[in-house]
Amino acid sequence: MSTKIVVVGGVAAGPKAACHLKRLQPDWEITVVDQDSLISYGGCGIPYYVCGDVSDEAELRSTSFHMVRDADFFKRAKGVDVRTRTRALAINRKEKVVQVEDLDSGEKQNLPYDKLMLATGAKPFVLPIEGVELDGVFTIANLHKAIEIKKRISKGLVTNAVVIGGGAIGVEMAEALTDLWGVNTSLVEFMPQLLPRIVDWQFAAMLKTHLLEKDVAVYTSEGASAILGDENGKVTGVRTPERTLEADLVIMAVGVRPRSELAKEAGLTVAPWGGIVVNKCLQTSDPDIYAAGDCIASTNLVTGKETYAPLGSLANRQGRIVGDNMAGLASQFQGVVGSFIMKAFDRCIAATGITCEAARAEGFDADYALTAPSDRAHFFPGEAIAVFQLVFDRSTRKVLGMQGFGVMNDSISVRIDTAAVMIANGAVIEDFRDAEMAYAPPFSAAIDSINAAAFVADNLCADRLRKVDMDRFLAWMDDFSLEPDWAALDIRHPLEVGPFVEKFGPEQWVAVPYDEVRERYAEIPEDKTLIILCDAGTRSYETQIFLDHIGKKNTMVLSGGFNVVKRIGVDWYPE
Amino acid sequence: MSTKIVVVGGVAAGPKAACHLKRLQPDWEITVVDQDSLISYGGCGIPYYVCGDVSDEAELRSTSFHMVRDADFFKRAKGVDVRTRTRALAINRKEKVVQVEDLDSGEKQNLPYDKLMLATGAKPFVLPIEGVELDGVFTIANLHKAIEIKKRISKGLVTNAVVIGGGAIGVEMAEALTDLWGVNTSLVEFMPQLLPRIVDWQFAAMLKTHLLEKDVAVYTSEGASAILGDENGKVTGVRTPERTLEADLVIMAVGVRPRSELAKEAGLTVAPWGGIVVNKCLQTSDPDIYAAGDCIASTNLVTGKETYAPLGSLANRQGRIVGDNMAGLASQFQGVVGSFIMKAFDRCIAATGITCEAARAEGFDADYALTAPSDRAHFFPGEAIAVFQLVFDRSTRKVLGMQGFGVMNDSISVRIDTAAVMIANGAVIEDFRDAEMAYAPPFSAAIDSINAAAFVADNLCADRLRKVDMDRFLAWMDDFSLEPDWAALDIRHPLEVGPFVEKFGPEQWVAVPYDEVRERYAEIPEDKTLIILCDAGTRSYETQIFLDHIGKKNTMVLSGGFNVVKRIGVDWYPE
Repeated sequence: MSTKIVVVGGVAAGPKAACHLKRLQPDWEITVVDQDSLISYGGCGIPYYVCGDVSDEAELRSTSFHMVRDADFFKRAKGVDVRTRTRALAINRKEKVVQVEDLDSGEKQNLPYDKLMLATGAKPFVLPIEGVELDGVFTIANLHKAIEIKKRISKGLVTNAVVIGGGAIGVEMAEALTDLWGVNTSLVEFMPQLLPRIVDWQFAAMLKTHLLEKDVAVYTSEGASAILGDENGKVTGVRTPERTLEADLVIMAVGVRPRSELAKEAGLTVAPWGGIVVNKCLQTSDPDIYAAGDCIASTNLVTGKETYAPLGSLANRQGRIVGDNMAGLASQFQGVVGSFIMKAFDRCIAATGITCEAARAEGFDADYALTAPSDRAHFFPGEAIAVFQLVFDRSTRKVLGMQGFGVMNDSISVRIDTAAVMIANGAVIEDFRDAEMAYAPPFSAAIDSINAAAFVADNLCADRLRKVDMDRFLAWMDDFSLEPDWAALDIRHPLEVGPFVEKFGPEQWVAVPYDEVRERYAEIPEDKTLIILCDAGTRSYETQIFLDHIGKKNTMVLSGGFNVVKRIGVDWYPE
Repeated sequence: MSTKIVVVGGVAAGPKAACHLKRLQPDWEITVVDQDSLISYGGCGIPYYVCGDVSDEAELRSTSFHMVRDADFFKRAKGVDVRTRTRALAINRKEKVVQVEDLDSGEKQNLPYDKLMLATGAKPFVLPIEGVELDGVFTIANLHKAIEIKKRISKGLVTNAVVIGGGAIGVEMAEALTDLWGVNTSLVEFMPQLLPRIVDWQFAAMLKTHLLEKDVAVYTSEGASAILGDENGKVTGVRTPERTLEADLVIMAVGVRPRSELAKEAGLTVAPWGGIVVNKCLQTSDPDIYAAGDCIASTNLVTGKETYAPLGSLANRQGRIVGDNMAGLASQFQGVVGSFIMKAFDRCIAATGITCEAARAEGFDADYALTAPSDRAHFFPGEAIAVFQLVFDRSTRKVLGMQGFGVMNDSISVRIDTAAVMIANGAVIEDFRDAEMAYAPPFSAAIDSINAAAFVADNLCADRLRKVDMDRFLAWMDDFSLEPDWAALDIRHPLEVGPFVEKFGPEQWVAVPYDEVRERYAEIPEDKTLIILCDAGTRSYETQIFLDHIGKKNTMVLSGGFNVVKRIGVDWYPE
């Protein structure tokens, strides 16, 4: 009798494992069950479906060669049995059967397995506040919800929307609603920044500024305390501690949780927060049961600790590994670096590894190099400034993370992906310094951003570069009394500096152009701590080195310079 | 007395080392000499200057903050003395002086040094054929030549141009001449393919097809045998063994050679082919003399052998390392992976590591995985097919190289740079399989191209996938008698396959759609070796696995499929 495989879950990891395994073991009988009628879809594409970039939801369920991945397709093309609208109710590990229920007929059945895979995915977290059950309140749980949201918008039923949650899905949905449909959209985030724990605050601040420019009303440090409705049970608004926002559509995107009840009830080891515990072969505590995708606990390769990384790309890679292992091939999942990338209107924001904030909380001797280089040769048409931050440990010189923000193209992806494979490999600053990035003016500067960030990190570690933190600088700009002995030393071109001197006065804002510092250093006040300012921070570093050399050592460099300040957006910036 | 540093060469490595060292050792006296009047320019930007993307040559000599990097700038801003139009004549290592000559006054002088750096760059190779001295024949040696070329074109003096040499600079110049100026441009390359030794033939063929589409006349396997001129000494054409091409402009771009005479005459160790030999600290055989940039010999990190890698990006990184070492900081240059990237009209072509051809010549058990995936989620607007090839050693599973070809954006750069840092680190196929590429639909497919290429390589190594080489397939398509027992098994959509069946007949061209193979396999002939064909090769692999399973084992998959065939361009393709 042929080996029987049952896979619970038909979105990403499940079908991937099933099809890969069928290729490795064509004799085996492989059955996938899913409680939904729609399967094998690109859940990450939902915001692009809602915004209209993807016109038909079937495109999200199609192969690249335009076949819809439904049960019939899996049977005909892959030789895999898929049973939709079939819920797995319980696992009997002793008998090695999964009890399933046909949701249409109510019929129950035991499916025997030799090996079982749990790819039960995640469920959206629902805030414990009033009004979540109102009509017009959605989570981005599955394709049906997305279809319903788009239907309401396209019927003109949505004028005002509130997105609760400033993570990736929240921001993508805010863009989708605003960009194509012109829905008045507000985004509320309980934490003080967007993308909390994913990027450091400077990057979140640049993103927020861009969203505001694009007419998304963003409220950070402001969670939803209630969802309001009318007498017919229709949503009318969202209340926060600060205000009430009108809404005929509310999208709750406050994260997801592993769907692991089945595993837990079967007695498999599950982390307290719900992630199914697996080994590197993706076996659960029962060696005949594998798990992969959004339902498992992973290991963070930077911290070595347990983490949760619900991402379609990981689910696919894990699915293949489960297939390998079930077939008897050695193949392991080592863990996750934590790579993240997102389009937000005309910008791209991305990160890999851990943030500086997280690294400090983990006890690393963490520091960061904030840079604002050109994304390609500065003379090449279309060149743009990107912002990158390298997070590293000063003692071990190990690189812990990298973040990037720039215009919407693949240039951020280039550096973040390169960084990710290096970080996964335990890279130190020198590895980033030595990374050989393919160079031609249309693609890169002669010194690539990744090398340049490593140079800054190296200068910081060697104490050749002393920087002022951006938040401290911005606070001082709002209130000079916070640091009464500070003054700015602005070394940019006189045409750039003029309005600042005029606004803040020549005592507070000392202007000496970069290429005149060596001649005119006597003009620079002795009694002040000087914050050296330029566009990107590189000229400021050179100036600091020179001033150190002549004995003026009370200086700090604003790393990233005005390129970052402008992108964060400040109200004190002269016209 | 302060330490004295002399740097010979003021384009890339020299100024970089000088400025970095000045920051590390502000007391030291650093002098850069260069025989040219124009220094510190982005030589790789020359084609973009000629084509008009960069309007003024001064942009190539400017910083990103728009200051021209001339001698005055280096003095004022960097504290580095630069003496232009000053030629280094000889090094007296015993006395530790460099004899230099002022090219304007003819005055000679000895510059004492404690440490010396040679950054003498490269000189263009000039073919030993008649006519190279004619007016209108140029090498891309320096900015002066570029200025003169652009002047002639913009004055309307150039109707027909011939570019000799199908390397990167030759192709870039051919684009520059054709694209903006509409010059009738021919490109001749002595070797059977463009970009010889940089990419394998399939990639060169796709590039050639694109150049032909863009009205560049490309002649491969056809070197220039003579350059022809009129009685006034003006160029009139280029003769090849096959034809005579009219030309009022000839650009000779047949590679560069290290400029190492000074080093050789000083008794420093120089490779037979001219590269100055250095250790990892970039010291020559005289520990007080360093060398970097286009004049040195490097180590290839894949083969471990000596190589020549004249690239601006490497020169800059090496310059910094020289500065570090002169200042007493430990810093090493490990060698080069050989990363390469190029824009060619609307396409990008890139490579890292070594080609399959080179790998086989080096004795590796080399094979390749040729793939044609989507560059981002297939449902995302603007998605395009990219072609990637992973070169690997079947015995050790070590990845030796990767090549990419796609539309002109940064998506190829993403994968080639990621591959480069992995290859530099000795990566095996599993590392490529596990690479964590940041995923969102606007940037990547859920299974990134780099992972997908590794999956194919893995299938090849495990003999689960048997492929037919593209050249063998194309030869057979031209002449079925070469392989009389072969037939095509085309599993694409009937609408795609129809014209092929009509043209080649149902015996030669068996059509069974991918999702019907499991039902209709009985129709597939037993007595033929079947070449399984689809768009990218993935469905063909699945089909091969299934046919193996039912006992039809005489099949081969065309990896990369019609996506690659179409890009190579064939005349037998039905309308």
